Amino acid sequence: MLIEGRQYRSIWYEAENDQVCFIDQTRLPHEFETRRLRTLADACEAIGTMRVRGAPLIGVTAAFGVYLSLREDPNSLETAIRQLRDTRPTAVNLRWALDRAVRELPAHSPVGVPSEKALKFALGLAEEDAACCEAIGRHGGKILHRLWQERCGQDRPLQVLTHCNAGALATVDWGTALSGIYKAAAAGVPLHVWVDETRPRNQGGALTCWELRQAGIDHSLIVDGAAGHVMARGLVDICITGSDRVSASGDVCNKIGTYQVALAARDNNLPFYAALPVSTIDFDWPSATEPIPIEEREAEEVSMVGGIEKSGGEVRIRQYPEETVVRNYAFDVTPARLVSGIITEQGMFKANRDSLAALARTKFSPSDP
Amino acid sequence: MLIEGRQYRSIWYEAENDQVCFIDQTRLPHEFETRRLRTLADACEAIGTMRVRGAPLIGVTAAFGVYLSLREDPNSLETAIRQLRDTRPTAVNLRWALDRAVRELPAHSPVGVPSEKALKFALGLAEEDAACCEAIGRHGGKILHRLWQERCGQDRPLQVLTHCNAGALATVDWGTALSGIYKAAAAGVPLHVWVDETRPRNQGGALTCWELRQAGIDHSLIVDGAAGHVMARGLVDICITGSDRVSASGDVCNKIGTYQVALAARDNNLPFYAALPVSTIDFDWPSATEPIPIEEREAEEVSMVGGIEKSGGEVRIRQYPEETVVRNYAFDVTPARLVSGIITEQGMFKANRDSLAALARTKFSPSDP
Repeated sequence: MLIEGRQYRSIWYEAENDQVCFIDQTRLPHEFETRRLRTLADACEAIGTMRVRGAPLIGVTAAFGVYLSLREDPNSLETAIRQLRDTRPTAVNLRWALDRAVRELPAHSPVGVPSEKALKFALGLAEEDAACCEAIGRHGGKILHRLWQERCGQDRPLQVLTHCNAGALATVDWGTALSGIYKAAAAGVPLHVWVDETRPRNQGGALTCWELRQAGIDHSLIVDGAAGHVMARGLVDICITGSDRVSASGDVCNKIGTYQVALAARDNNLPFYAALPVSTIDFDWPSATEPIPIEEREAEEVSMVGGIEKSGGEVRIRQYPEETVVRNYAFDVTPARLVSGIITEQGMFKANRDSLAALARTKFSPSDP
Repeated sequence: MLIEGRQYRSIWYEAENDQVCFIDQTRLPHEFETRRLRTLADACEAIGTMRVRGAPLIGVTAAFGVYLSLREDPNSLETAIRQLRDTRPTAVNLRWALDRAVRELPAHSPVGVPSEKALKFALGLAEEDAACCEAIGRHGGKILHRLWQERCGQDRPLQVLTHCNAGALATVDWGTALSGIYKAAAAGVPLHVWVDETRPRNQGGALTCWELRQAGIDHSLIVDGAAGHVMARGLVDICITGSDRVSASGDVCNKIGTYQVALAARDNNLPFYAALPVSTIDFDWPSATEPIPIEEREAEEVSMVGGIEKSGGEVRIRQYPEETVVRNYAFDVTPARLVSGIITEQGMFKANRDSLAALARTKFSPSDP
């Protein structure tokens, strides 16, 4: 991704001085700060305090954490895995990356695991994620390009609405929903993006707006309640979001509020797409009629809010009194009937069982174990 | 309304010491503070800085401002009207109350207007508003009572979802949407209310939760994006909001986000009602197909947020950098097809032209000029 005119990834390795660097997302949007991971403890801290967030990025960070641990002690694999796993106990992708590390990094007692192997594994995982997201963007970008030609001609920019941050910052590079936007922009499609603020953590207002500003893509921030209004006013051509989990029937579990975006898109005859790696499709989850557990997070995510005070310092303040009862659902499920298509690295698929079954058969790419 | 076990109105007159008092809403939910209006300047300040807000309440406050001005100078009617009008230039209800004051308070040069007349007018307006809102609550309460008997039996509380603050704080007393909730609760209907936070000004999280807590009514705060999710989970029986303007066909203009609530209600086969005084129906606005101007407010309402810092002091902080482009639409329009009914002081009416036409004929009640 382009930041202040320079190419960055969310996390990267500098071979010349053997160090792992990353963008500290807790400082955004107010400060752009990169940091180093020197030790396993640094990696655990970065994941635990959400300096890095986004499922794919957490997994890659953990893989680098394993490398840093083995660099100090070739016999520390087990400890490293355990410590990393404990940083975000519910993060599925973290466990997936660590399980894969265990499989791909066989220990040779008493020598331990050569750290070069772990580095190669982490670099491979990072490349794989970036390539996958870029492929998602190629397919998404084509859809945007075609829609622009059909709906806008040369007359006006294509208007895209997105929710939360499914951008380069949630992955190693490119992102999922935003990847298509970057590819379309690079292909010369003029764009304007409506960014939902995405309460309670404000990933839209804080991260997506920042990413789009860095990429030079025209955008406007709106509160979550305004998505339907801008659609009803004829100011939107297409909605695209990411996803945390897709059912075998094409139901899309994603950041809370996505379902209402999809409802408004349907009411205004607008296409609604979800963009995601094939690995996000959970073929063990048959359909939305079988409810999945929805994470409920702490009340303070809603009641407290962070920002910059007058003196310029960062501060967290209380919006609502402690006695306010808050239910903080993190995700919702958009039924497949509201989903125009699932954009993956393998192309666009209809949101139904038959269409996704083709993906199930090809799910394990050669790079998978 | 009941606050800390005592009956209050949002604004009231104390005859024993000839003073006008009100609840300072800028201190809520963190502090409950009442203040006095001593002069016209006090009234202008209270309206201008939103110590009082909500269309009916602003009108009544302005009427008391006229009284305070005439108490000092019986020839100050014109000046007072002009100063009050300038406090919130776009507030329709403020102008309506002041126009009515001009009609009902004829000047007797050179004696001027006796301040007792202005006091009587202000008190009359306040009583009228309270009585109107209580009547809305009687009709709304009946709907809730019936629905509870039909859907919940004695087994569980009725689950109501509301957006923004259409409560006692927005009026002199009772409110509109919340009035029915208070009446149903008083009639013994067990209730749980889902309160949408209602970005960007957070009237749900700050004011509605506070009101419901004072009234001892069980409630939970959710972010605006979660309304559809709780409905889809079967946790809602009915949605009720207020309205700022209703078309002759029953389209409901209300706080931004209301349209998405109504869409989610429809998708989950739940009733969606708007509660409002008949005076809110704009018979000059034929239907939603004729767009009305939607107020766009300043970016800082979204980019800045207020609360309590660690030391206990109130502070406003910046959530998003100044360069973030924000579009801050204040209202949206929910088409009549999504509205189950319009609850007014005259009863519940279907959201269509024929049904509302009956109201048009009886629009001017005897208390109107």
